[in-house]
Amino acid sequence: MTYKVDLNCDMGESFGAYKMGNDEEILDYVTSANIACGFHAGDPTTMRKTVKLALEKNVGIGAHPGLQDLVGFGRRNLALSPQEAYDLVVYQIGALSGFVKAEGGQLQHVKAHGALYNMAVKDAALSEAIAEAVYQIDPELVLFGLSGSEIVTAGNKIGLRTANEVFSDRTYQQDGSLTPRSQNNALITDSQIAINQVIRMVKEHKVATVDQTDASLQADTICIHGDGIQALDFAIQISKSLKEADIDVVKVREFV
Amino acid sequence: MTYKVDLNCDMGESFGAYKMGNDEEILDYVTSANIACGFHAGDPTTMRKTVKLALEKNVGIGAHPGLQDLVGFGRRNLALSPQEAYDLVVYQIGALSGFVKAEGGQLQHVKAHGALYNMAVKDAALSEAIAEAVYQIDPELVLFGLSGSEIVTAGNKIGLRTANEVFSDRTYQQDGSLTPRSQNNALITDSQIAINQVIRMVKEHKVATVDQTDASLQADTICIHGDGIQALDFAIQISKSLKEADIDVVKVREFV
Amino acid sequence: MTYKVDLNCDMGESFGAYKMGNDEEILDYVTSANIACGFHAGDPTTMRKTVKLALEKNVGIGAHPGLQDLVGFGRRNLALSPQEAYDLVVYQIGALSGFVKAEGGQLQHVKAHGALYNMAVKDAALSEAIAEAVYQIDPELVLFGLSGSEIVTAGNKIGLRTANEVFSDRTYQQDGSLTPRSQNNALITDSQIAINQVIRMVKEHKVATVDQTDASLQADTICIHGDGIQALDFAIQISKSLKEADIDVVKVREFV
Amino acid sequence: MTYKVDLNCDMGESFGAYKMGNDEEILDYVTSANIACGFHAGDPTTMRKTVKLALEKNVGIGAHPGLQDLVGFGRRNLALSPQEAYDLVVYQIGALSGFVKAEGGQLQHVKAHGALYNMAVKDAALSEAIAEAVYQIDPELVLFGLSGSEIVTAGNKIGLRTANEVFSDRTYQQDGSLTPRSQNNALITDSQIAINQVIRMVKEHKVATVDQTDASLQADTICIHGDGIQALDFAIQISKSLKEADIDVVKVREFV
Repeated sequence: MTYKVDLNCDMGESFGAYKMGNDEEILDYVTSANIACGFHAGDPTTMRKTVKLALEKNVGIGAHPGLQDLVGFGRRNLALSPQEAYDLVVYQIGALSGFVKAEGGQLQHVKAHGALYNMAVKDAALSEAIAEAVYQIDPELVLFGLSGSEIVTAGNKIGLRTANEVFSDRTYQQDGSLTPRSQNNALITDSQIAINQVIRMVKEHKVATVDQTDASLQADTICIHGDGIQALDFAIQISKSLKEADIDVVKVREFV
Repeated sequence: MTYKVDLNCDMGESFGAYKMGNDEEILDYVTSANIACGFHAGDPTTMRKTVKLALEKNVGIGAHPGLQDLVGFGRRNLALSPQEAYDLVVYQIGALSGFVKAEGGQLQHVKAHGALYNMAVKDAALSEAIAEAVYQIDPELVLFGLSGSEIVTAGNKIGLRTANEVFSDRTYQQDGSLTPRSQNNALITDSQIAINQVIRMVKEHKVATVDQTDASLQADTICIHGDGIQALDFAIQISKSLKEADIDVVKVREFV
Repeated sequence: MTYKVDLNCDMGESFGAYKMGNDEEILDYVTSANIACGFHAGDPTTMRKTVKLALEKNVGIGAHPGLQDLVGFGRRNLALSPQEAYDLVVYQIGALSGFVKAEGGQLQHVKAHGALYNMAVKDAALSEAIAEAVYQIDPELVLFGLSGSEIVTAGNKIGLRTANEVFSDRTYQQDGSLTPRSQNNALITDSQIAINQVIRMVKEHKVATVDQTDASLQADTICIHGDGIQALDFAIQISKSLKEADIDVVKVREFV
Repeated sequence: MTYKVDLNCDMGESFGAYKMGNDEEILDYVTSANIACGFHAGDPTTMRKTVKLALEKNVGIGAHPGLQDLVGFGRRNLALSPQEAYDLVVYQIGALSGFVKAEGGQLQHVKAHGALYNMAVKDAALSEAIAEAVYQIDPELVLFGLSGSEIVTAGNKIGLRTANEVFSDRTYQQDGSLTPRSQNNALITDSQIAINQVIRMVKEHKVATVDQTDASLQADTICIHGDGIQALDFAIQISKSLKEADIDVVKVREFV
């Protein structure tokens, strides 16, 4: 039996004169790119360049819509209504689609960013609004969401293909949720432990939790962080380790 | 012989708690709506509502991209490069297309807004960047531009259908350009004179200029201003007068 | 004995081409103006004009800092840190102070806007951050806050003069807090009842609650809503009724 | 005789998650810091931190107001009116003054940024609007402007102290203006030539032009670019060379 998993990374987060990330290098090791759409990061020029790069490197292109909070990088929770979330997701997917069309490509997926992603994890109404926005734009798009979260449930319910996302560098709790960053044991800093966790999630659908038990979860796509010097090294290492463990790293559209 | 002309109006210019225009009423009298895309005016929620209204009233939907200058309403010239113009036009057409797709409609046209429109009138490079953005997104879109301007030339050159736009309430100069607003005789305030000017432009392709000569020009679409109480009255009056003069008021897509 | 109360109103909420409120008329009936500072509403030109108008009409000028959420008018809760709140309050008070200085006036007070005001009501850390920002800019400023809230407590603690704010058109709960807008009985629509409630609050420091009991509260300043046609009528009516009830309507700085 | 000159550098240009410049290190070698005010760059948190740093290092603090064009970093010309320029300069000086007051410091100067600076060089009306904004906020402030430009003229005319700014790494034309960047010979890349040019400007009030003649100009303050790795090295080198040439590097307020 062959195992398959997608490697995704946030991209296109530069803004005007401000540079962020190592997009060009990271794109050699991931299979899906979540491209910022101008609300929490990114701007039209950056979007065009990033779409072009992703197409050249044959990486699956995703819209990465976020809250309209540039100074907060879309990371601060905002009490928006499901309707407002629907509207800003349609807007941002549309904007990115413009560049994808102009460059002759095809949009593969949508992944909500930062606080929008996190708020939706346990909020069914918000998740359904996001899923509906994606579906209304194009029912062939793949919706990314935290493995087992309301986003995935909402996507499946409306008829979208979904990708359960897992994190290599975060610990999990007994219920399959991520340990909050506010806790000491939230992060995995040893890259070998991180990689082993991911391999087990892909092959056995299981993860050891901070409570010394196993939680079950589905792993369709693994989130790689794109910022910092380390990011590239880790992308190379995880990509290599997955292949050595007989896990094919392929675009999510090919297997979900 | 039957004459045909399109009536277009800027729409969807509200922003958050700020209301502008009488969109719902005006939509009963125009055939094409230029919908703001969030840069100089408009926001995702307003865009969704305006697209829905336009579809219900069977009005042709256009993207109305502008400069990213909300406080200046996109009316102040900005020294942006053709590449930057291309990028922000792709972005904004894409964003509006998202709502059009989500509502099950089809985008008809693109009209640049305010300073972007005005700067392009005599700037071939800028006009070509705008035309290319439109063409790359969808070669079936109709590009609006001031009658006889570089925008129309650029649109024709790249292979787009174009609509020559005329103004009922503005006077013209010998070369067919608009008299600058800074001059006393720039505006026509008598609505009957305005309507007669338009009828002659449609039927005879001619306009009397401020220099007492006639200038030749093509009139495919007439710009109606949507703001103020008067706007609605004028829309009703011009619509009625055109029909009485045997000029069919129809969506631009049907005849250009 | 003479009773005193201040009447405050939000002002300067126009933005670029977008007009909001009847500032010039309302200024004839209120004693304190809370002027938007460009984050949730307002822009530099509007701020200058509003400061000038308030000075001409001898109305106390207040900075009205809000969240950086123009499309949401600063009404949506945002999970910002106390430090971020401090920073945006300093910024906005500073910006408004620029216009007050340029026009030769003096800043009287600070009142947080919308979600920032509401979030601070029960959040001591956020209230302390706001109070500290005000104090660091100028310890002579008066800090407005919901009567009995954490904002008032924080202001008093750091050594600021504070103004307990009451609402004429809102009902109160047994603990002195406002009935949430989500409940049916949150609003008082009968203007006579609204005025009587306010008079009793000023004279007896009491308000009848939705639970048929009395709650105690201090009433230094009454909030008037500035938008809508009704706003002006109500401002006139409450101003007249307060005077008839032997309550002097005076700038808050003169008595707190 | 002792010569004196000020070294200034743009600072506080980071924005939210986006980092720019080496402020902390550069501050050890300059005497005046031009701090971005949130329109073209900077945000409230960055402003607070930068003001604090500058005070700790005893560097003169300046407001660095720019156009509201974050994505263009305030570098693109915008057709704003003198009144609009006045308003946004008052706003931004006010905002920065808030942090300076809160940290117990004193504002020393104002230098317009990017396109606002460049447009004002030959535009008397725009320069007068900027000078008036500075004067109205505080007539003790020093106004920076390109040596011999309309900004300096306007500042002197209204009664402000002014600082004539020169550039070490740019060539000059016969009329004392900078060679436009569009020309091949606009930049000086040899740091020793750059330093010699500056020393001559300070001591002899002269600069060799690209036309092989000398132009006369006043040099009160030298602009150092703060971005890039080289920036720090050059700051160290020029600071050292000036001292060796018996030129005291001191805050502009001490000698203009």
